[in-house]
Amino acid sequence: LTNITIAIDAMGGDYGTKVTVPAAVSILEKHHDLKLILVGDQTAIQKELNNTINDRLSIQHASEVVDMDELPSKALRSKKDSSLRVALNLVKENRARACVSAGNTGALVATAHYVLKTLPEVDRPAIIRSLPTLIKDKKVSMLDLGANVYVTPEQLYQFAVMGSVLVTEHFNIERPKVALLNIGVEQIKGNEQVREADKIFSQSRFLNYVGYIEGDGIFSGKVDIVVCDGFIGNIALKAVEGFAKLIACYTKSSFSRNLFAKISALIAMSSLKNLKDQINPGKFNGASLIGLKGIVIKSHGSANAADFANAIEEAILEVGKNIPEKIGEKVGMLLKEEIKT
Amino acid sequence: LTNITIAIDAMGGDYGTKVTVPAAVSILEKHHDLKLILVGDQTAIQKELNNTINDRLSIQHASEVVDMDELPSKALRSKKDSSLRVALNLVKENRARACVSAGNTGALVATAHYVLKTLPEVDRPAIIRSLPTLIKDKKVSMLDLGANVYVTPEQLYQFAVMGSVLVTEHFNIERPKVALLNIGVEQIKGNEQVREADKIFSQSRFLNYVGYIEGDGIFSGKVDIVVCDGFIGNIALKAVEGFAKLIACYTKSSFSRNLFAKISALIAMSSLKNLKDQINPGKFNGASLIGLKGIVIKSHGSANAADFANAIEEAILEVGKNIPEKIGEKVGMLLKEEIKT
Repeated sequence: LTNITIAIDAMGGDYGTKVTVPAAVSILEKHHDLKLILVGDQTAIQKELNNTINDRLSIQHASEVVDMDELPSKALRSKKDSSLRVALNLVKENRARACVSAGNTGALVATAHYVLKTLPEVDRPAIIRSLPTLIKDKKVSMLDLGANVYVTPEQLYQFAVMGSVLVTEHFNIERPKVALLNIGVEQIKGNEQVREADKIFSQSRFLNYVGYIEGDGIFSGKVDIVVCDGFIGNIALKAVEGFAKLIACYTKSSFSRNLFAKISALIAMSSLKNLKDQINPGKFNGASLIGLKGIVIKSHGSANAADFANAIEEAILEVGKNIPEKIGEKVGMLLKEEIKT
Repeated sequence: LTNITIAIDAMGGDYGTKVTVPAAVSILEKHHDLKLILVGDQTAIQKELNNTINDRLSIQHASEVVDMDELPSKALRSKKDSSLRVALNLVKENRARACVSAGNTGALVATAHYVLKTLPEVDRPAIIRSLPTLIKDKKVSMLDLGANVYVTPEQLYQFAVMGSVLVTEHFNIERPKVALLNIGVEQIKGNEQVREADKIFSQSRFLNYVGYIEGDGIFSGKVDIVVCDGFIGNIALKAVEGFAKLIACYTKSSFSRNLFAKISALIAMSSLKNLKDQINPGKFNGASLIGLKGIVIKSHGSANAADFANAIEEAILEVGKNIPEKIGEKVGMLLKEEIKT
């Protein structure tokens, strides 16, 4: 894999250049064939670079920034020179193979959809992320995590097919197991949307569909792909993130109650660090927008430099595997064939 | 508080009498004024009691059991002598002040609704549970956790009012803060149902409504009540439960990798146990069905005897506080006044 160029939205996220620039510098040290284009306010980027010079790092100036709480439609209409938009344009113009942003999710989805367009037969892009499971080294991929509030059963099917192709490429799983997120495993439970999707999924010859899964089954390792709409997916995953913070807080207080507990903590440190590394959401940072004619990776807005570097790693991996081309080939063919029959 | 009688659905849950009977026996030792009626198959209950005699423990025979995956409508129509139904009848007939069941949630909601009826101005019962937060000793109450898949904005408002009354009684919080669960904190985000509810909540003079909250805010301690429909609430909370299992599994494996880690674990044991106790979902076992003319507590189906005893404790507490009467007074008045103006 040689000479990949990736565009970085340097202004996105809660911390902007303070996180994106150090992440870019560190990842270039690791990947010697990688080139990065930092997109954003030239002065701010240069200030953060603080005279660091790397001939594989260039700056593309963009005069505007999309705010984290800005209306996606407004960002799309009125901020044509935003760092987010310019970074996506670089992908569109083939000057970069992927775009990584920690910016406003809604604006990123809307702008990426507008600039890059969806693959044939795909209505809408979806956000997918891999997560740890109870089974060691086994991941589960979940989508949609917030790109779409309203999703038809047919679109859930498109998500399932795209997710299957991605997981096969990503984790070398031949026929990944797909489940629909629901409130009960019985056929009769759930809402209309999920029950309709269940019928479509069951009829598919391509999908390895195993039926419904409940919220507590997401991390069980029993399935490879969990499909849901973006409203549910976003709330469920953020609830888990909030709970992870709660546990981190309790862990800290459990080990600081008294001197003996503090000594215990010192001794148990390496094991605790190992635990923290494994459940750290930053380790799983880097959700993919799939269904587009190009690679777009969304970092968590509150990511630190190490987390943001993980999102860039995800982009490198997807470039290496030619993910959109692979999805494009199979999905276009399959969706044409299956939905229309 | 003297001479409370509580009806226990002895057959409900994944383990039936193996869990409910020992829980009942243990809780009677703790509360010397409490009386319990174990409802279910007399032979099975007696076998589990194994000659334990307590004059505050009686058995009410019921010949049928509702299966955990049975259709609620079928259970309601055809199993009129189920342990769940008979236990609810005891509340209806004032022979017990509350009913505790670990049985089929859908059947419990449908049967309780049918047998006990809702309070005036309340359309549907909802499931509410208190959860830990980042702020020590501060709980958050969340509803609906799965009683209703389809909920109107007006019903979300009813949930908010009922939740507020419960939290005021339960935790002595004068004007508890209420938030609506959504995918973004901005006014423009979310789906139609939530945005409509936001308008109603904002206009209420009774509610201390603070706006939207995202999934990661549930455990923040910033609000006292989180309101959502039962589809979202059930999936979000079960996702968190699944994640808690994942963490428990990682914690175990982190501390068993090698001899040094094992020794660390032994030393850190008391701190780890403290941590485990604090995040143990069983500690927070016992969700309330509110909005009914009677107290119904739902235990988790997979609860062990100690967890099930916690659900009985919740019932004792609600009886002591006269929760349905309190909700009935305020809710009937408020909903009549506010919704109809």
